[in-house]
Amino acid sequence: MTREEIRNLCVKSLEEKMVGTEAQNIDNGNGFYRYFFTNFPDLRVYFKGAEKYTADDVKKSERFDKQGQRILLACHLIANVFNNEEVFKAYVRETINRHRIYKMDPALWMAFFTVFTGYLESTGSLTDEQKAAWMALGKEFNAECQVHLKNSNLPYVH
Amino acid sequence: MTREEIRNLCVKSLEEKMVGTEAQNIDNGNGFYRYFFTNFPDLRVYFKGAEKYTADDVKKSERFDKQGQRILLACHLIANVFNNEEVFKAYVRETINRHRIYKMDPALWMAFFTVFTGYLESTGSLTDEQKAAWMALGKEFNAECQVHLKNSNLPYVH
Repeated sequence: MTREEIRNLCVKSLEEKMVGTEAQNIDNGNGFYRYFFTNFPDLRVYFKGAEKYTADDVKKSERFDKQGQRILLACHLIANVFNNEEVFKAYVRETINRHRIYKMDPALWMAFFTVFTGYLESTGSLTDEQKAAWMALGKEFNAECQVHLKNSNLPYVH
Repeated sequence: MTREEIRNLCVKSLEEKMVGTEAQNIDNGNGFYRYFFTNFPDLRVYFKGAEKYTADDVKKSERFDKQGQRILLACHLIANVFNNEEVFKAYVRETINRHRIYKMDPALWMAFFTVFTGYLESTGSLTDEQKAAWMALGKEFNAECQVHLKNSNLPYVH
């Protein structure tokens, strides 16, 4: 697949998960965290104060409405700019810089794409081709993450 | 101009101002602040600790190397996603949320595009059409800023 094809497949896969200010848009983001906390409960440790949240707690949480929009927007952005490689990589580095304070396991950057495609599959249609596109995007995302973590003297995956 | 035409003109105008990790890329961002601080010195007040910086101080400043990449990346992002209206607007709202702590004059969101196109003109080529595209983008950027400021109970331009 070309960068352009990967981009278009990923953007298309998000059409039913649009960001915005309407209830459905907010739920598209909150829903990610409901899926995440249900299926990967061990990772709740990164969300201070929400370490024991159930999907139901997430659903009622304004914090995860906001956080949901933020992460969903980030996914839209990386999909949309994937065909502009240097912009894509700069956005990856900026994302790493902003997450520095959370002291994340560096393996989680690649793992995110398993979680995210799992969410897309769980609530709508994700074709095999779209899933492959997201994993190809994720591979490049992760590669730049690890380079930038190393250059920033932070733990990285070799 | 259609959204697609505006997008393509703005993206094209940034080709010579690419983000990245090489010296030239860093200078593309730092250069914005040199231009900004030289031509709009009154706005330095928003940069705590740098209120009296000259262009020369900015040039030597690691802080403005980093800040320069961040703002240049933001401009690449808004240009690249302009044809995806809801993603564009979500990015605008996120930008407003992140700037809340700086208590900015709400008129500065539109003014930014005068500063930014001034920078592009000052260091390279910006065609009249590209400039018009950036101002059209800025008008929509600003419109969503003011709506979101109002919805967030913050000062906004009527």
